[in-house]
Amino acid sequence: MSETAASSSAGAASPLAPAAFPLVHPVPGVDLLGAAIGLKKQVGRRDLMLVRLAPDTAIAGTLTRSRCPSAPVDWCRRQLPGGCARAIVVNSANANAFTGTAGDQVVDNTVDAAAALFGCPREEVFVASTGVIGVPVPPRHIGDSLAALLGRLRPDAWRDAAAAIMTTDTFPKAASRQLDLGGTTVTISGIAKGSGMIAPDMATMLGFVFTDAAIAPPALQAMVGRATDRSFNCITVDSDTSTSDTVLVAATGAAGNTPIADHRDKAARPFIDALEAVMADLAQQVVRDGEGAQKFITIDVSGAASARAARRIGLAIANSPLVKTAIAGEDANWGRIVMAVGKAGERADRDRLSIAMGGVTITRNGQLEPGYDETPVAEHLRGQEIHIAVDVGVGKGRATVWTCDLTHGYISINADYRS
Amino acid sequence: MSETAASSSAGAASPLAPAAFPLVHPVPGVDLLGAAIGLKKQVGRRDLMLVRLAPDTAIAGTLTRSRCPSAPVDWCRRQLPGGCARAIVVNSANANAFTGTAGDQVVDNTVDAAAALFGCPREEVFVASTGVIGVPVPPRHIGDSLAALLGRLRPDAWRDAAAAIMTTDTFPKAASRQLDLGGTTVTISGIAKGSGMIAPDMATMLGFVFTDAAIAPPALQAMVGRATDRSFNCITVDSDTSTSDTVLVAATGAAGNTPIADHRDKAARPFIDALEAVMADLAQQVVRDGEGAQKFITIDVSGAASARAARRIGLAIANSPLVKTAIAGEDANWGRIVMAVGKAGERADRDRLSIAMGGVTITRNGQLEPGYDETPVAEHLRGQEIHIAVDVGVGKGRATVWTCDLTHGYISINADYRS
Repeated sequence: MSETAASSSAGAASPLAPAAFPLVHPVPGVDLLGAAIGLKKQVGRRDLMLVRLAPDTAIAGTLTRSRCPSAPVDWCRRQLPGGCARAIVVNSANANAFTGTAGDQVVDNTVDAAAALFGCPREEVFVASTGVIGVPVPPRHIGDSLAALLGRLRPDAWRDAAAAIMTTDTFPKAASRQLDLGGTTVTISGIAKGSGMIAPDMATMLGFVFTDAAIAPPALQAMVGRATDRSFNCITVDSDTSTSDTVLVAATGAAGNTPIADHRDKAARPFIDALEAVMADLAQQVVRDGEGAQKFITIDVSGAASARAARRIGLAIANSPLVKTAIAGEDANWGRIVMAVGKAGERADRDRLSIAMGGVTITRNGQLEPGYDETPVAEHLRGQEIHIAVDVGVGKGRATVWTCDLTHGYISINADYRS
Repeated sequence: MSETAASSSAGAASPLAPAAFPLVHPVPGVDLLGAAIGLKKQVGRRDLMLVRLAPDTAIAGTLTRSRCPSAPVDWCRRQLPGGCARAIVVNSANANAFTGTAGDQVVDNTVDAAAALFGCPREEVFVASTGVIGVPVPPRHIGDSLAALLGRLRPDAWRDAAAAIMTTDTFPKAASRQLDLGGTTVTISGIAKGSGMIAPDMATMLGFVFTDAAIAPPALQAMVGRATDRSFNCITVDSDTSTSDTVLVAATGAAGNTPIADHRDKAARPFIDALEAVMADLAQQVVRDGEGAQKFITIDVSGAASARAARRIGLAIANSPLVKTAIAGEDANWGRIVMAVGKAGERADRDRLSIAMGGVTITRNGQLEPGYDETPVAEHLRGQEIHIAVDVGVGKGRATVWTCDLTHGYISINADYRS
């Protein structure tokens, strides 16, 4: 348990990693940095992200459903209803989870320091931590580090910030979009970390998204909840849920658009679409960094009783070790998909079930397609980008879920390693 | 998909397999056989179990919750309320699942043949199948095979019967107990198969238990439901649920005990305990034959809101790939247990959580035990029999769950193999 986080981030990048760090547009009203404050054992490795937000920035978020959440998650859950943020402080290398009252004191101290630095109420400071579980954080270390960093805040430090929140990630993750919102150009830029729940000493999915759009906090919260359901809640590497999962979306309002007061407002639609696109992009990058991943798998479920039912069926397929190992083995083993649909606990009509892989129909209406030839499916499975489509034949619910295969690499990372 | 089932049963036995097939007491009123009828490709490999039960035998059972069940499961679900059985016919090598109306016709034909042979109503014939999904069973093959086998029914053919229902199992599974029931000696003997949900072409957990006790069908059903919850529903290899899981318990009444009419009758207690012991023994043997298993893991959960909540927490730990790989790696990584408790979705008090491994307290009341020394825990983890105890600090609910570790062997069996 004494191993530092990020120990494996020095390793080779995932074979599914993007070729380069993407272009990230600065977001007016947002300055950030990624710095090394000595939490990671490797000297000079970035382990702290600090974000300064313009006054009156709206914030919304979704937090882990774990019944054993970390101290920072508890803090954010209490502050989110306030809807305003001036600062976000995130450290890697230590999750500050299962650390008792000492963990709450670390959060208090960090929040005090950031509030003093930016001259804002404590309620407008948000925090997140990722790394070792159950090891105390040095009591005042994070809070005491902040003042010296102030001069390094910049509008374009996305790569440094993305690196500072990495643990076992093999590449930094970011996504950015610009859109026209009623005649005003609006930017959405975000970063994320995660590569499976991974070891508790290197746990967690984190996502931080920033926009200069003006959006009322309740409208933003509604948008973020929905976008999370269609992005971070649609991915799975190993079905494990971290103590610390945190997604925060901050809207500075600096773009000067007519403020969006209601997420159901038709004018909000282009923003919602772009927000979902950025968050889905980030979520997919987390899957592409899945431990041991060799193949990126997209699962489209249709014909379910509801969108929620479709997502549950998709996740049952995506979490099935048998489906994931079959794809690792490039085996067109569609029977495992039938099994996974069956265990999802949602309505499905066995006699109307249709399954396709790589665009090739394998079963239709519950029976093997006459003349089914496995050759093109086997060819598809030899690629890196795998597509599965399942129609369960009972309704109109749809969902798309993303996952990766389950390989010897996953076992090696998680079993062969000794803390 | 054309590979026969049982292809790997010729491989080496699991390192956790028992040294020898156990002593199995014959059960008055039960004759059985295990025969080769050519469903498995390997010539002479047993693939059919036939059981003849005395008139007025009571039957009870539990069936898969899969929403895509096999044709035999559908049949058994319809007949179980009748509560009487004279015959059980089970084949391996083909699950008769996802086979449309042709699959139902195979069941009809098998039931017709067995009913004619034993002179009983169709409703008293029970069937189960395990093996390939989605491949038609030769239409009249099973039914036509039965008559020639009649002379081979014997009271002591337990090993042959256990072998006939194997697919990827590496050893045949049986358990047996005798008890005193109000002055009458009563026997309970059973067999099972399963080693993970495994490939769809070699799927399924099956259990068949026989007793000569006289028990009314409703009382038997209540006992079996409860015993299943404490045995087969407390094991997991890879969290996958087969299309075909079937547990049937038949009570012939030949022992001549005072019939048990109500499972709440105090006199029934010794029988219930022995039934649970036999079923737990069989369930644990399935885990010991888990694909790639190197370690047998017992997880005791206490302090939960209810027994059901305790079981869910135990299964969340047992199904966590991170917990299973940590144990494979002999890593005393208790943070992964905290994570798994958190994701179970049941009430748990982070600040009262206690965790022990191998009898050594690691955390108590939500914090690392002062002076905790990992050495004895690491030593425990180098063994084959692993014990984890978790108290979640909110109530009096208890459960015990059994699983195995997740190793390279699992990946090799399920990914490296190409159908």
